[in-house]
Amino acid sequence: MGRVTQRLKVERRDGRTLRRIESVAVEEPLEIRVAALPDGGVPAGSSPLRPPSTTVTTTMRLPRDDFDLALGHLVAEGLVADGDAVATMMHCTDTGPDGSPTFNVVEVTLAAGVSLQRRVTERTEIATSACGVCGSATVDDLLAALPTSPGDDGARVDLSAIHAGMAAMRERQRVFEATGGVHAAALLGPAGELLVVREDIGRHNAVDKVIGWAAREGRLPLRGHALLVSSRAGFEIAQKAAVAGVPVLACVSAATTLAVEVADRAGLTLLGFVREPRATVYTHTHRIPESEPGL
Amino acid sequence: MGRVTQRLKVERRDGRTLRRIESVAVEEPLEIRVAALPDGGVPAGSSPLRPPSTTVTTTMRLPRDDFDLALGHLVAEGLVADGDAVATMMHCTDTGPDGSPTFNVVEVTLAAGVSLQRRVTERTEIATSACGVCGSATVDDLLAALPTSPGDDGARVDLSAIHAGMAAMRERQRVFEATGGVHAAALLGPAGELLVVREDIGRHNAVDKVIGWAAREGRLPLRGHALLVSSRAGFEIAQKAAVAGVPVLACVSAATTLAVEVADRAGLTLLGFVREPRATVYTHTHRIPESEPGL
Repeated sequence: MGRVTQRLKVERRDGRTLRRIESVAVEEPLEIRVAALPDGGVPAGSSPLRPPSTTVTTTMRLPRDDFDLALGHLVAEGLVADGDAVATMMHCTDTGPDGSPTFNVVEVTLAAGVSLQRRVTERTEIATSACGVCGSATVDDLLAALPTSPGDDGARVDLSAIHAGMAAMRERQRVFEATGGVHAAALLGPAGELLVVREDIGRHNAVDKVIGWAAREGRLPLRGHALLVSSRAGFEIAQKAAVAGVPVLACVSAATTLAVEVADRAGLTLLGFVREPRATVYTHTHRIPESEPGL
Repeated sequence: MGRVTQRLKVERRDGRTLRRIESVAVEEPLEIRVAALPDGGVPAGSSPLRPPSTTVTTTMRLPRDDFDLALGHLVAEGLVADGDAVATMMHCTDTGPDGSPTFNVVEVTLAAGVSLQRRVTERTEIATSACGVCGSATVDDLLAALPTSPGDDGARVDLSAIHAGMAAMRERQRVFEATGGVHAAALLGPAGELLVVREDIGRHNAVDKVIGWAAREGRLPLRGHALLVSSRAGFEIAQKAAVAGVPVLACVSAATTLAVEVADRAGLTLLGFVREPRATVYTHTHRIPESEPGL
């Protein structure tokens, strides 16, 4: 799909006025629908080609790598375990007002016998529970559902490899290069090699796209890998990393207290302000070896 | 509430390792609940002090200016018209596991006879409609619900006033100064004066907080004002600005295609890459007067 940027007429001002054409990142909604085929086969009244489906979410996204986004969202939100849970993904034949296809709906059909691991609730990102009087949303409620630390997995990543990975990611941020307006996420393999870069207008979507790619490649859980993110680390980014099982999450900007708490509990090494030659390591610092004295 | 930053032990690496304490921006969930009191008074079976309430949203936020966030969210999402729709706002007496109050639930009681202007749906941000086969989320669906341009309102803002406002906003970003990890939004009055600055870990929340402040001050719709945002402009930021009736939205980073489309239809002047002495004006450029030749 060649529709990730669009050329628009703008006025550039800096004292003078310059009328020019600039590339702008495309933002469009993506609806992710999931259809489950029960063990017994096609339910009565349904077409065998199109079992009944439910909408999991609608998200604003850069329209590229939609299948990675759909699968990654399902994995990162704990709705399916991995890529094997999915039989097929297709763009629906929905059309806009001019009759042309919008490619804004992806339908995921689960593998035979597979169903979503939990009910799709109003807001899948946040688990709330009720207090006696009026309901409450406590940090402990949020943290209770997360994976806990598996102990030391032996993974180690040199800070120099993370800095090199960030530089390689930036070189492959084509849409950012053209527009200055999108985030990116990337995955380093166990030898520090750059495996994949994904861009999106939202940092959560960029991470979902990387996790979806990894699910399609059969790489989950992401032991021995490092997840790189061009932005800050908040609760949801740390949560997605923890669910995907990646031991190292490295972000260009700051982390929040809740991201640090998630990382601490989940056994995740969290880095912020990753800007060569520096980084701040918030949690489980043992995975980033200290440089030898004199080096 | 003095809990917007927290001091955490971290390791700063840059070849050497420095163990130190750094300030990190606090992220906690806020649940926004709304209680409506019907015209006829207290419904049977309810306490007069605590009418039944429903959860509108739970959002991760910087725990400060919660009432501005709650009211601004209701206004920006089109759930109430302005500050007059609300009788009271209070923090619920919810407690964490140690028994101390979390201040993570705000209950909004609507004024007598007022009810929410639309039903709270699964995802209040996105209006979807169904196509014949499988449901679709088209850009036109999203745009159809937005305010349309009221024609030229006569508002004019010099680019120099916007740059000065951005500089003044940065000076008042106390949490960003301490942590490097939060966004800000601000409002300029008709004479270019800085009226309010609000910070949050999320840029949408920062905008909601500013709109909530304006609603409390009786300034809606925000004719003659300018809304400044420290980040990019996507669909939702432009939508919130359009609903609040502000004629000028100025952002530090890029805009997306959908933000441009929203601004175009709603009669909103949208600026991106606002970095002294420059800016890119995407829509309704007449509100930013061109400099005199030779100046």
